[in-house]
Amino acid sequence: MLKKEDNEKLCRTNSGTPMGEVFRSYWIPALLTEEVPEADCPPVRLKLLGEELVAFRDSEGKVAILDAYCPHRRAHLFWGRNEECGIRCVYHGWKFDQAGNCVDMPNEPDNSKFKHRVKLTSYPTWEKSGIIWTYMGKGEQPSYPDFEWLRAPDTHFQVSKTYEGCNWLQALEGGIDTSHSSFAHNNNIQDKKSMRSRATNPKLEVDKTDYGFRYVGIRDLKDDGNYIRAYQFIMPAQQMRGQMIKWHDGSREDYPTVRGHIWVPIDDESVWVWNFKYTSEPSIPLDPKFSLEQEILFGRGPDDVLPGYRLKRNPSNDYLIDRELQRTKTFTGIKGVNTQDYALQETMEKPFIDRTKERLGTADLAIIAARQMLLEAIRDLEEGRQPKGVNPETYRNVRACDRFLPKGIDWREGLAEDMQAKF
Amino acid sequence: MLKKEDNEKLCRTNSGTPMGEVFRSYWIPALLTEEVPEADCPPVRLKLLGEELVAFRDSEGKVAILDAYCPHRRAHLFWGRNEECGIRCVYHGWKFDQAGNCVDMPNEPDNSKFKHRVKLTSYPTWEKSGIIWTYMGKGEQPSYPDFEWLRAPDTHFQVSKTYEGCNWLQALEGGIDTSHSSFAHNNNIQDKKSMRSRATNPKLEVDKTDYGFRYVGIRDLKDDGNYIRAYQFIMPAQQMRGQMIKWHDGSREDYPTVRGHIWVPIDDESVWVWNFKYTSEPSIPLDPKFSLEQEILFGRGPDDVLPGYRLKRNPSNDYLIDRELQRTKTFTGIKGVNTQDYALQETMEKPFIDRTKERLGTADLAIIAARQMLLEAIRDLEEGRQPKGVNPETYRNVRACDRFLPKGIDWREGLAEDMQAKF
Amino acid sequence: MLKKEDNEKLCRTNSGTPMGEVFRSYWIPALLTEEVPEADCPPVRLKLLGEELVAFRDSEGKVAILDAYCPHRRAHLFWGRNEECGIRCVYHGWKFDQAGNCVDMPNEPDNSKFKHRVKLTSYPTWEKSGIIWTYMGKGEQPSYPDFEWLRAPDTHFQVSKTYEGCNWLQALEGGIDTSHSSFAHNNNIQDKKSMRSRATNPKLEVDKTDYGFRYVGIRDLKDDGNYIRAYQFIMPAQQMRGQMIKWHDGSREDYPTVRGHIWVPIDDESVWVWNFKYTSEPSIPLDPKFSLEQEILFGRGPDDVLPGYRLKRNPSNDYLIDRELQRTKTFTGIKGVNTQDYALQETMEKPFIDRTKERLGTADLAIIAARQMLLEAIRDLEEGRQPKGVNPETYRNVRACDRFLPKGIDWREGLAEDMQAKF
Repeated sequence: MLKKEDNEKLCRTNSGTPMGEVFRSYWIPALLTEEVPEADCPPVRLKLLGEELVAFRDSEGKVAILDAYCPHRRAHLFWGRNEECGIRCVYHGWKFDQAGNCVDMPNEPDNSKFKHRVKLTSYPTWEKSGIIWTYMGKGEQPSYPDFEWLRAPDTHFQVSKTYEGCNWLQALEGGIDTSHSSFAHNNNIQDKKSMRSRATNPKLEVDKTDYGFRYVGIRDLKDDGNYIRAYQFIMPAQQMRGQMIKWHDGSREDYPTVRGHIWVPIDDESVWVWNFKYTSEPSIPLDPKFSLEQEILFGRGPDDVLPGYRLKRNPSNDYLIDRELQRTKTFTGIKGVNTQDYALQETMEKPFIDRTKERLGTADLAIIAARQMLLEAIRDLEEGRQPKGVNPETYRNVRACDRFLPKGIDWREGLAEDMQAKF
Repeated sequence: MLKKEDNEKLCRTNSGTPMGEVFRSYWIPALLTEEVPEADCPPVRLKLLGEELVAFRDSEGKVAILDAYCPHRRAHLFWGRNEECGIRCVYHGWKFDQAGNCVDMPNEPDNSKFKHRVKLTSYPTWEKSGIIWTYMGKGEQPSYPDFEWLRAPDTHFQVSKTYEGCNWLQALEGGIDTSHSSFAHNNNIQDKKSMRSRATNPKLEVDKTDYGFRYVGIRDLKDDGNYIRAYQFIMPAQQMRGQMIKWHDGSREDYPTVRGHIWVPIDDESVWVWNFKYTSEPSIPLDPKFSLEQEILFGRGPDDVLPGYRLKRNPSNDYLIDRELQRTKTFTGIKGVNTQDYALQETMEKPFIDRTKERLGTADLAIIAARQMLLEAIRDLEEGRQPKGVNPETYRNVRACDRFLPKGIDWREGLAEDMQAKF
Repeated sequence: MLKKEDNEKLCRTNSGTPMGEVFRSYWIPALLTEEVPEADCPPVRLKLLGEELVAFRDSEGKVAILDAYCPHRRAHLFWGRNEECGIRCVYHGWKFDQAGNCVDMPNEPDNSKFKHRVKLTSYPTWEKSGIIWTYMGKGEQPSYPDFEWLRAPDTHFQVSKTYEGCNWLQALEGGIDTSHSSFAHNNNIQDKKSMRSRATNPKLEVDKTDYGFRYVGIRDLKDDGNYIRAYQFIMPAQQMRGQMIKWHDGSREDYPTVRGHIWVPIDDESVWVWNFKYTSEPSIPLDPKFSLEQEILFGRGPDDVLPGYRLKRNPSNDYLIDRELQRTKTFTGIKGVNTQDYALQETMEKPFIDRTKERLGTADLAIIAARQMLLEAIRDLEEGRQPKGVNPETYRNVRACDRFLPKGIDWREGLAEDMQAKF
């Protein structure tokens, strides 16, 4: 239930669009470190917010993100030679450094000054925790991101990315939606005692903040109190959630992690989904075996992924849905928690869903809040204000969690300490 | 030789188009029974007249056809769970019965009345002779179809469907075209005595009726009299023809069947071709071996068809045309009578042929009549009249045949009895 | 650095476009003789300048090029029967001769005169040196092409064609670009003494002529004088260049050939690249082994080509780029001299490059001249003048060459004789 023009505004992120300008106000994840693993390695193609780009790690280890097309005659720099602090176009040998300066033009006369007048669009990068971040805006660079998880040591942190073939907003909306986990992600429909089955209609509460909002889904477990799942939504496209989980060898009652996603539009019909997790206790490192098991559970284990960070289970094979499994065991018949999300989101209307036809309920409060906040950011920018969450001070001390609370205790109080960063 | 605007009018059938509204005035075939074989079986995707739909057979055996997208947040109901008289969306568990009522909304508060205000577009269905029919109009449901072949018992009747990748009208026009069988379907060019070779220019006569028109192709066999092939065109998109054929074991001189097609637009560039046949004598059941041989002859035997009722011989492999076979034996070099049609029709201009460039002759009288009648149906609807052939009384007693007649006997007289239904 | 409207004008060649009309003023290569090798062989599909066509060699050996769609009901004539001096549509048997006349209409009454009023668009053809040429214009046919290479005997000449998936103009611009060979085609980056490495910034000089222009790239080899590569640009889309090369068995110091390309638009996003070479000395035939080696070197040997004259190394496999090879041996890491060009040109912006964003230098003088000349041809046509190079008298005596010249000798003088045809 969104006006057609607001839906268009929120979904489209190419250069010059309102939401595109919002995204260009923030540092966003661009690449995994592993994609440009070492100095002078081959350049890679990259598309972000509808822009064709090329990235390379120069001889000094600095990652450059440049317009994909050589300004001379528009050859793609993916074919380029990454050599001595610059990428050299293989068409005529023009060379550009990481700042986009043309530093060599060997097919022009030796004394030519032409190269000093040629510059290629270049976006600044910052590398942290295995992620190469970029800022694609025209204005002054904001401070670097300072999410708690970027301060967690590598021993406590894990990150991956996945391609999803749908508009970024329907991916994000799925990610901040809490009630669907009782359905789409119910992988044991026979177990009527599971958390998912016991309270399928969590009560949502949303508190707006300077970085976005925090919100909870409260599941009423009757005599057992409440199960509270507390999320953070950090502008423009980050979800953070807590996830207690039994330790895989049974040696602990729970193994609390904080997890989340960032959604970065590739273009209007596809999105990079960034997936991170870290242990919420500085004293407990992230067990690699547990981490791998979780990646597999979520559908992105080593056997689940094709080149280009695409999933083997995808629209071309109906996500290998198993109708018998669906009948007897899992709600969807599709393996992989996030694969279940992708199956739902990638097969919606193209290029993006018609939100004028939606029927939203009380379970959609967080989604409604996110849309309001994104529209507010568009207005902020148009009226010359900095959008929420650009300044890291606004979010650096927050985190998410999930907990059981006795009835009668407000989560704002009961979870106050658990929602404070410890790293 | 059709005006551009009339060509557009006839070819496009999405919701809101003139021809789309005509199609939505009739019951049309939607699915084979075999696609939803039993109660609570998996749902199937379905696209008709440009609309994305989902179908399922509910616990009581009733087939439902619904809008494909859950009205909540637009997930595709193909992924849904078909359970206890309704389909449950796997995103948030909303459940819809076969009439499109929301009967459960488990992620909303227990006492919520929201579900009573949510409804999904649903089209009525009717199942007969292995076919699930639907009515996609907004007005009052017309009476159920009552073609003779729907009254023939299962022992006398056979039906199949095939995907064809072209606009519905060029498929229909090929189907009501009688002279092309002397060329496209001449599978023995050496045999100069065959019916096809003896008179390649049948004289056409068209009689308009309340349900469409009946027409004949008269082949002048000189001293042997005339060979008359009498067709029915039943609005909006059915062809019915007679087909004498020698019994496969030689035990009979002829084995008369009535056959036909219905063309149902999937979208403007593809169409479902429904193929039916039945024995024209109530005393003679349809021999399964003969029926299978005929399906193979027409190019849709078990070895000819891919999943989704698509043909193995298709544009991607040039229909496996055999130029040597074409040179020496068959007119086209392509196997399968209807595959020959598809090769011709699927490789015409996209999205549909430019009929302003045609040069029609006397052999095209039936096609011209069909276009006139379809344009008339558009006007009928626009002016508030029921189009021809909606009322089954208009066509229930007609059938088609082919016969030899002595010269001088008018077919209207000579075939009068043979063109009367016997079932 | 071209105005947007001029870029559109130059790139688009469908019927009715300004550049389309320019192309339709010349004879252009349509097919290789090998594609329709003998009388009455199967017809072939053909697309030129955005027009869907069909070609066949009739019983008398004459090649016909016709509109692809039968004027009756628009079936594709590719399926047709090539028989007794005409192609017969397999839908209803209408038959057309090579001039597009309807010579048989067997589904119409015996005495019908209808066929005399039906005609199919037909383009004249002329066959020479293994190439079938066509003239797609509406005006009077110009004289047949008379390039020197068409006069070279078959023993001295070789021709091939290749599909390239980009707009014709970026292919042509690559072809008349001389400085890129020091980069894209440098297949031995270690060899600092090679011609390519010794002078990467040739000085360009362009002389406009009545057929287009001739131009040179002058490489300053210091004490060794100059290396001059002299090209011809013959309107509308032919490049001709000289290429000295050491004889493959070492028995000669050089083995001079003249080579070139013609680019013929298939549609706005793809182009046929015609590749020809001939020995520049009438006394020396073209050695087949040498010729084959050169085809392999250029990336179109027997093992490099797929059906339809497409390359195995193509965008779907990143041209099998070998980054290690690129690091250590060749500038691009891609095998095949012209494959290197295709990799660069096929991966530029779609449907064609945005030339308003280019930064052209002195190395691009020939490209600038070609654009001016093509725009001039558009104006010529619009104002009723014959474009340059339509009349073979203007170019019949020219050829290209490459030579070493001592300093101080102007190439116009030093190469005067070498740039004169000898055949």
